[in-house]
Amino acid sequence: MKIDVRRNILEANQELALQNREFFQKNKVLVVNIMAAPGAGKTSTILKTVDLLRKKLRFLVIEGDIASRIDAEKMESRGIPVVQINTGHMCHLDANMIKGALSKFTYGADNILFIENVGNLVCPAEFSLGEGLNIVISSVPEGHDKPYKYPGVYLKADAVILNKMDTLGSIDFEKDSFYEGIKALHADLPIFEVSCKTGEGFTEWGEWLLGKYRENFPQTML
Amino acid sequence: MKIDVRRNILEANQELALQNREFFQKNKVLVVNIMAAPGAGKTSTILKTVDLLRKKLRFLVIEGDIASRIDAEKMESRGIPVVQINTGHMCHLDANMIKGALSKFTYGADNILFIENVGNLVCPAEFSLGEGLNIVISSVPEGHDKPYKYPGVYLKADAVILNKMDTLGSIDFEKDSFYEGIKALHADLPIFEVSCKTGEGFTEWGEWLLGKYRENFPQTML
Repeated sequence: MKIDVRRNILEANQELALQNREFFQKNKVLVVNIMAAPGAGKTSTILKTVDLLRKKLRFLVIEGDIASRIDAEKMESRGIPVVQINTGHMCHLDANMIKGALSKFTYGADNILFIENVGNLVCPAEFSLGEGLNIVISSVPEGHDKPYKYPGVYLKADAVILNKMDTLGSIDFEKDSFYEGIKALHADLPIFEVSCKTGEGFTEWGEWLLGKYRENFPQTML
Repeated sequence: MKIDVRRNILEANQELALQNREFFQKNKVLVVNIMAAPGAGKTSTILKTVDLLRKKLRFLVIEGDIASRIDAEKMESRGIPVVQINTGHMCHLDANMIKGALSKFTYGADNILFIENVGNLVCPAEFSLGEGLNIVISSVPEGHDKPYKYPGVYLKADAVILNKMDTLGSIDFEKDSFYEGIKALHADLPIFEVSCKTGEGFTEWGEWLLGKYRENFPQTML
């Protein structure tokens, strides 16, 4: 019974995710679903990326949090259109929540919508939102064993950002083990080493993201 | 419908949690449910605590992970009796999983059973396991805003451990804001500042835990 309920929920979600995807495609929005553990640097990474690319692309953000508007306020203070979703006790965003947020934005040309999922390495991986890209942000202080312990979220990823590289000197982190854990799941997954604090590594990530926009919308003038 | 299913699951879990609690009480086991985000230092904190108190108390560990036996192997290498539970796609442990693990231990006098829950600040807070204490481990690199974003898990806590204090110099962490966020939820919650790397702060935490054992089992000779 429990399994049937689970399957029904996932199937209903998938149906809505496909509707969202169609909407995004029509409105030239590349949707980037950001998944990470609490405190890995999701908000900081989004803000850095917007700073880097806002002359070329238009950015929109959906903030998913159990409670609070802390991250949404950071976006607003930079003039980035943002919708906050507070999930209460729900440990992830789902396609229906995203569908409800879509009409709150206006869409121009060349949009990237970042969806900052609830901080959680488990549940967000199971619910498609209609996104074009899934990005996992890991951080050095979390430790190198995360790909072994939370394989599902890395399996779903189109790229991994390894944040807080500036702490590498003071934290015990075996980079080889982290890379091997990811490669075992996903041989060709791009991994971007960055630091939101120092700004290192963002140029490569920004170029890759821009390339993905062009791939998805080849008719763009970018 | 969805709400009813949720309620039924939680009620069935509560029933089993009460059975577990009865078993633990009878066998003089203080059960400590450890909840934290991925990479906050759950395993390291357990290992440090065992080192500190193993002359006084007998320690048992249940490891909850989506996948892998990495943490269980660390316990085994120190001679600590451990049962690994791999939850697959389940984002938390539940009372039924704990019930299934109980017969795998032998019980002497003065036992502490650490349950290392799945790394997740959301779902574990909803499922009682029959534990005597709920401990949340936060870490400095996760940031000071966690009590605002994940109130449920802090509301359930009997104490908070703030780990990785050694990184305070190199990480932007507003300690006052962290404390205010917790106090707003829970005026008298003990907070222990520790570092698993340097060992700082463990004496106070160890004393507190020993005190809790004596409170729960006043007939102990400890």
